[in-house]
Amino acid sequence: MTVIHDLTRRLQRKNDSKIVLLVADGLGGLPLEPGGKTELETASTPNLDALAQRASLGLSTPVLPGIAPGSGPGHLGLFGYDPLEYEIGRGVLEALGIDFDLGPNDVAVRGNFCTIDGDGNITDRRAGRIGNDVGKPLCEKLDQIEIPGVEVFVRHVKEYRLVVVFRGEGLGGNVDDTDPQRTGVPPLAPNPRDEASKRTAEICAEFVEKAREVLKDDAPANLLTMRGIAKRPDIPTFEEVYGTKPAAIAVYPMYRGLARLVGMDVLDAGTTPDDQLSRLEAAWNDYDFFFLHYKYTDSSGEDGNFDLKVQKTEEVDGMIPRINALDPTVVVVTGDHSTPAKQKAHSWHPVPTMIAADTCRFDGSTHFGENACQVGGLGQFEAKYLMLQALAHAGRLEKFGA
Amino acid sequence: MTVIHDLTRRLQRKNDSKIVLLVADGLGGLPLEPGGKTELETASTPNLDALAQRASLGLSTPVLPGIAPGSGPGHLGLFGYDPLEYEIGRGVLEALGIDFDLGPNDVAVRGNFCTIDGDGNITDRRAGRIGNDVGKPLCEKLDQIEIPGVEVFVRHVKEYRLVVVFRGEGLGGNVDDTDPQRTGVPPLAPNPRDEASKRTAEICAEFVEKAREVLKDDAPANLLTMRGIAKRPDIPTFEEVYGTKPAAIAVYPMYRGLARLVGMDVLDAGTTPDDQLSRLEAAWNDYDFFFLHYKYTDSSGEDGNFDLKVQKTEEVDGMIPRINALDPTVVVVTGDHSTPAKQKAHSWHPVPTMIAADTCRFDGSTHFGENACQVGGLGQFEAKYLMLQALAHAGRLEKFGA
Repeated sequence: MTVIHDLTRRLQRKNDSKIVLLVADGLGGLPLEPGGKTELETASTPNLDALAQRASLGLSTPVLPGIAPGSGPGHLGLFGYDPLEYEIGRGVLEALGIDFDLGPNDVAVRGNFCTIDGDGNITDRRAGRIGNDVGKPLCEKLDQIEIPGVEVFVRHVKEYRLVVVFRGEGLGGNVDDTDPQRTGVPPLAPNPRDEASKRTAEICAEFVEKAREVLKDDAPANLLTMRGIAKRPDIPTFEEVYGTKPAAIAVYPMYRGLARLVGMDVLDAGTTPDDQLSRLEAAWNDYDFFFLHYKYTDSSGEDGNFDLKVQKTEEVDGMIPRINALDPTVVVVTGDHSTPAKQKAHSWHPVPTMIAADTCRFDGSTHFGENACQVGGLGQFEAKYLMLQALAHAGRLEKFGA
Repeated sequence: MTVIHDLTRRLQRKNDSKIVLLVADGLGGLPLEPGGKTELETASTPNLDALAQRASLGLSTPVLPGIAPGSGPGHLGLFGYDPLEYEIGRGVLEALGIDFDLGPNDVAVRGNFCTIDGDGNITDRRAGRIGNDVGKPLCEKLDQIEIPGVEVFVRHVKEYRLVVVFRGEGLGGNVDDTDPQRTGVPPLAPNPRDEASKRTAEICAEFVEKAREVLKDDAPANLLTMRGIAKRPDIPTFEEVYGTKPAAIAVYPMYRGLARLVGMDVLDAGTTPDDQLSRLEAAWNDYDFFFLHYKYTDSSGEDGNFDLKVQKTEEVDGMIPRINALDPTVVVVTGDHSTPAKQKAHSWHPVPTMIAADTCRFDGSTHFGENACQVGGLGQFEAKYLMLQALAHAGRLEKFGA
């Protein structure tokens, strides 16, 4: 399964090329009716279309045909890490999503404040959906909890949601959720699924008992449940496996976190595409690989707003000229998955992708859209092979064998 | 990894079909400019185009997307051997390249004559680039060296380059190079990378000491360094895995060597395509699988000569009528990799491929070229699956399962 990185470690070659990977989240879409156009095909995208004329197009499958990925596996695939080999637990993803800098010895937990009655049974699994004004100070109180032998971090996420991180040597990450998924019963005891996670389960239990004491007067948020208890996956860095110096320019913390997971430098991205492009320009000489993430093609798709997704796609198109002006060796435009407005959700449909470089076998495409990609020169391919192609076009891979 | 041959061993069926595999080395190309044509698309290829009309077309990926292969992995893939599973060391390839008949107990070494000074330090890693007139007789002298327990063969390759082969039971092939890659230092001691190669390393060291004595008065070629020390990979034969009787008709020794590696009979191919075709005609009744290799589509590409590659492609086209006249059951036309004149090197771009047979799902192609292949019936596929399809069209595979 690690054949990709076995190869790139052996074949990597340094040069002064620059690669830009522009990920329009949830880029792929669907027509609303048979014979109709997708969001990307409907959008006016003169810059993407011009790029397509000096590119190879194709459709990338994030994981396997029929599998709709979350943001984690979607991005890992694009970064060349087999998403079936490197799984990211929910606790880890939640921690990444608040910009928490997870280390290799960290176990991360998604917490939910809940309400318990005098018998210790849960009466509300979301603690009456308390607001941020309530949740945040409670997290600050919980952050004071000390457990011998490990560092404990408690961070507020949103409303009744929080992240707990235990940092310590040799903690396993395989512990069952304590959320019983119903009311009228107490939270479950944290149950380890392997030997290496026994100590983690004990720590979780100790933390819950101390939290019970700390929160005893804070009803409706007088306890918490734990979910998605997981260790940061042990992932080799981008620099090690590809020999590139990568930077991430992403507005949303989740994507910064995913980039950090593979060892990218995370740059201040501001809040708008213009901010991101200014950062790209400023950092151009300091890195040779740039991951730019654009969120709103996904969020508009999730909202089921076809027209808004069209408009957001046009905003992505507007990013191209400033990227081109930097004269990158390779520009890749793709998504981490499809998010058709018609489905209001991530989907499994393969993702329109193009690689633009002087070494492309230009495939006659004049437009960047799902149908053009379907007959493009890249064919249909697993997303995990995208990086190999980007590196090849950048002249960063030696020949395999003599 | 060996699923292909597990299947073909179980499913192989004998009949009187004939398969011709015509490999135009480095066949795939690139247009020089967006909107332009590749070498193959530019060439006038009436015979290949006619064949395409009763064929299925596609693009084959030699190893993985983005990976440019050498000739070894490129051909192994076409022969149905996973090039990531069967790696061919440099010493082995060098020996194959001079038609040396490597056996299963042979360790092959690429040697370079070098110059050492009175202290034993290298002063010239290529021995002043001596000519063949100097190198050849020195190899004959070295060929007299005897080492107890193994057979030693020394063969001249070209100028300062030679091949050394040690033949003996139980010799491992994992020994580091002795070339220090710089001057002013002595050659490195041969260092075994595993237990099984300790004896090999000792033999290498003993050979070098004896060579030091033999060559002591032959400055500038008064020693040699050893590189690419490798054992012949243990490869099952074509006949065993496919049940066919294969013949190779290749002008260049490297390709004869690769064919020999998989157990093909290597026939005298003469020096021209006409010679090769005459040999094919003469051997037609004696074999049922024919591998024809044409070199100049690759060498013209390596030279960066687009027009010459076009012309050489037309020479390949000229080979088709005499092949057709033999009425083969299956004709496969492909390359072992792409060698775009634009890049002057082997590249990773997928390779135009067609399979012509009465059992084809004809895909409406009227021309054999990269763009036609991109939308052809074979799709994009890994080269290692080509043989399965050729055998299927030849009626040489039983149904899998009931």
